Amino acid sequence: MIPANNPALVSWVDVPSGSDFPIQNLPFGIFSTENLSPRVGVAIGDMILDCEALADRGYLQDAGFPLELFAVDQLNPLIKQAGKLGMRLLRERLSDLLNDDGVELKSQEADRAACLIPQKEATLHLPIEVGDYTDFYSSEQHAYNVGCMFRDPDNALMPNWKHLPVGYHGRASSIVVSGVPIHRPCGQTRADDSDQPTYGPCRLLDFELEIGFVTFEGKALGQRISSAEAEDYIVGLFLFNDWSARDIQKWEYVPLGPFLAKSFASSISPWIVLLDALEPFRVAGPVQDPEVLPYLQQDGENFYDIGLSVGIETGQGDETIVSRSNFKHMYWSMVQQLTHHSSNGCNIRAGDVLASGTISGQDESAYGSMLELSWRGSKPVAMTDGTERRFIQDGDTVIMRGHGERQGVRIGFGEVRSKVLPAID
Amino acid sequence: MIPANNPALVSWVDVPSGSDFPIQNLPFGIFSTENLSPRVGVAIGDMILDCEALADRGYLQDAGFPLELFAVDQLNPLIKQAGKLGMRLLRERLSDLLNDDGVELKSQEADRAACLIPQKEATLHLPIEVGDYTDFYSSEQHAYNVGCMFRDPDNALMPNWKHLPVGYHGRASSIVVSGVPIHRPCGQTRADDSDQPTYGPCRLLDFELEIGFVTFEGKALGQRISSAEAEDYIVGLFLFNDWSARDIQKWEYVPLGPFLAKSFASSISPWIVLLDALEPFRVAGPVQDPEVLPYLQQDGENFYDIGLSVGIETGQGDETIVSRSNFKHMYWSMVQQLTHHSSNGCNIRAGDVLASGTISGQDESAYGSMLELSWRGSKPVAMTDGTERRFIQDGDTVIMRGHGERQGVRIGFGEVRSKVLPAID
Repeated sequence: MIPANNPALVSWVDVPSGSDFPIQNLPFGIFSTENLSPRVGVAIGDMILDCEALADRGYLQDAGFPLELFAVDQLNPLIKQAGKLGMRLLRERLSDLLNDDGVELKSQEADRAACLIPQKEATLHLPIEVGDYTDFYSSEQHAYNVGCMFRDPDNALMPNWKHLPVGYHGRASSIVVSGVPIHRPCGQTRADDSDQPTYGPCRLLDFELEIGFVTFEGKALGQRISSAEAEDYIVGLFLFNDWSARDIQKWEYVPLGPFLAKSFASSISPWIVLLDALEPFRVAGPVQDPEVLPYLQQDGENFYDIGLSVGIETGQGDETIVSRSNFKHMYWSMVQQLTHHSSNGCNIRAGDVLASGTISGQDESAYGSMLELSWRGSKPVAMTDGTERRFIQDGDTVIMRGHGERQGVRIGFGEVRSKVLPAID
Repeated sequence: MIPANNPALVSWVDVPSGSDFPIQNLPFGIFSTENLSPRVGVAIGDMILDCEALADRGYLQDAGFPLELFAVDQLNPLIKQAGKLGMRLLRERLSDLLNDDGVELKSQEADRAACLIPQKEATLHLPIEVGDYTDFYSSEQHAYNVGCMFRDPDNALMPNWKHLPVGYHGRASSIVVSGVPIHRPCGQTRADDSDQPTYGPCRLLDFELEIGFVTFEGKALGQRISSAEAEDYIVGLFLFNDWSARDIQKWEYVPLGPFLAKSFASSISPWIVLLDALEPFRVAGPVQDPEVLPYLQQDGENFYDIGLSVGIETGQGDETIVSRSNFKHMYWSMVQQLTHHSSNGCNIRAGDVLASGTISGQDESAYGSMLELSWRGSKPVAMTDGTERRFIQDGDTVIMRGHGERQGVRIGFGEVRSKVLPAID
């Protein structure tokens, strides 16, 4: 067990029951307040530990991190310079400073006050400047469901699906952080009973429940990352809502894949939970049959038992949980995704994002998109306010949450919450 | 006619006959030498005008460009700060300084010597840090050829093809500049007569002859760019070799499009030719039938008569020109590509790249890929050294060139030249 994960650790900062952010988590983000410019912070309970202020007061200098890595509006420089080992050491150093058994920061009243900011007073920003973004399609139930709807149940999975983690390049510029509202996109669609397409607001707006991860600086172009090395290049994870316009997608995506059906926006949660913090939640994955090629074989338990949920808050403010899924419902692991991604020599950089694809469990209540939950609109989903949903309506707020829990320690992601506004004329 | 395009202009810098870089061009790039750190430069004849040195000596201060925009290893800050109007004014200012009728720089012997660097002494770098890269599929002959080979001639074009410029997100991290060698990628493929895939070096390595363009900073996420506005967001153009592994592509690309078959490398020419410099080469495009939706309709002549060629230099050093195409062989214009890209509210940033897709003319000699030239390997292409090619072999160097010519003025791109090295074990 990595020391920072010890279930017995307690912080002198109050961590309310049910918080996603105990001392065993310490996820990294970028925040600002009315008085503080954007900077690196770490969530602890309902507070944020201000890493710039901490560095400025000398608490991080022995760890070898210069102030300028924290006084910026993105985590990229820190991730790039620190690397896997550096980020591990930094998290452990912060854990020591927050530990109730410690005195170094705990005993300094003025420094404590200066370095701890209530989350409710802070604005959370997009934590990384995303270089390239890749989306996978790695949940078998999701791929099966989509295959059943658009092809047939006997051939739901394409021949390649169990041989490689199918993925595609996504759009990085339109990735936004939780809280940023999304305008319903316009686009070109064609009705089933028409020869002619039309242009206008998307009618079948959907979310996709995913988890994304951000990478460290990789190898030079042409060099490959093996499955044994892959975890060394994974910084941490966050919730990812891969907004999708199903009607635009249907008309545009053959033969080159999803394009404008996805690129209008993707929303992520603001805290990067380090892979180290998720060690207690490792579980074995599915038996992969047929056996995968040697380059995709992996050792150990590379799947994670992290409960996920999706809520829809309707215009009246009532929230209905429409999906309860789990990150363990993956066929391909992050290790395999990154290994495959690198298998042609494609380089990754500090701040690239790879996302899981929609995470659907076998139970209908664990489907990760409205497309599946309403089975292409044929089974409306009941809302607690008495209305029903086939897809997402203007004024709806979609909220994704996730956390794991072991030995009484809960490690969570917070939430990604996005309101859908009407299309712009 | 924009003054900098005047065919009567002559520079006091010698411009050899047949040069791509007369005073009417003035393309921007990033260069360094043994003694000079990477910086912004402009090609003129066989020389480079060093914009950092020029700014340092005060020649650009009236134009309002601070030195730091030129003393960097990418054009992004200049593009972002200058915008369309600023880049136009900068090119005109440089044209005035290089004009044989001028005296301001011409008369200053020491400044001339300090600001002009022979191209043969310089290393040319990737001119932009690419944010997002999008590839289109906008040449009808190319789409038709591929459709004939992989589907059937009667249904070669997909139903959506003439209604929208089909495109997909590409990989930005692996875009490299001319001169950088490419390793043959490895990947997963499946032979037609097998149930099982294998992993190993790609056997069907191909180029794609394309032109790419780089964008200015766009509008906020959610806002659209109309076809009337699109040119205001186009900085300039360059040659683009969209390397493709046909065997990897065939196995991986259904249903989400090309991924590892493309992401191992794309190569670009080092000089960004401003759209302004290409004004003399505007031509009308094809009649678009069926008529496109109103948002894709455009005014004026938005296609460009720019001759393109592809050469293969075999291991012995003999070059064979295998394709002669032209940028006018496009069905969808850059204006339409950018308008469509933005039609869902997707934002663009200074330094994003959009590429044309393979540019194939109707004549077989004008096909822009080996896939088409050798018709899927069935018609080997003869090399001047007596060998033949179906696809690209290790040791081959692929060279793309392009230029337009009007009233005795030749505006060119230089070349993108890339040697293919064996796969890394």
